[in-house]
Amino acid sequence: MTNGDAFDPNCPTRLVLDRIGDKWSVLVVLSLRHGPKRFTELRDMIGGVTPKVLTQTLRAMAADGLLTREVFAEVPPRVEYTLTPLGRSLQEPIQAITDWAEQYVTEVMAARETRQGQER
Amino acid sequence: MTNGDAFDPNCPTRLVLDRIGDKWSVLVVLSLRHGPKRFTELRDMIGGVTPKVLTQTLRAMAADGLLTREVFAEVPPRVEYTLTPLGRSLQEPIQAITDWAEQYVTEVMAARETRQGQER
Repeated sequence: MTNGDAFDPNCPTRLVLDRIGDKWSVLVVLSLRHGPKRFTELRDMIGGVTPKVLTQTLRAMAADGLLTREVFAEVPPRVEYTLTPLGRSLQEPIQAITDWAEQYVTEVMAARETRQGQER
Repeated sequence: MTNGDAFDPNCPTRLVLDRIGDKWSVLVVLSLRHGPKRFTELRDMIGGVTPKVLTQTLRAMAADGLLTREVFAEVPPRVEYTLTPLGRSLQEPIQAITDWAEQYVTEVMAARETRQGQER
């Protein structure tokens, strides 16, 4: 490790891991990879997210400099979310995680089923 | 995407992402990269984790086939956690995430401080 210690809860690196080690942030980065999206588009893409949690996630990601929120003066007002260069730099490591999930999902599911059969 | 759709909460790929998109699982994988560890060693390495949350995390990861829990008949009994080959295969994508966190922590922290100055 070069700039920090992910095991120390007071280390900035750990604070960053707390943010990006969150499945909703991961799904927002994936949702925005092809360009800006409106709130309702994100909500519809990301199955299972509540509007409240999506709002919190977007706000935290904006505060971390990962995306911008732009309001267009239309009626009704249009609000668009766009990844910043910093947010786009997250796409590669996140892709590594989702690729792993898709490659090994069968093994994980098999382990879960075996375990369920063994549970007391 | 090849084997699944991470956006669909009912898709197995998403279930896997729910598990590995959890900072405690990430920190357990990092803690076990050099070999087996006992519960107390893990608890001491992973700053900020409570025994209850660590127990839940280890149980879920065992159920997913990512690690094994071995009990040695000693007094007091020794219990060791070891990554399985499946769990070890997670090390590479997780390293990509922690490398990102360490590389960009300064930018994220700067964004947080700028934002705090602008908050209403």
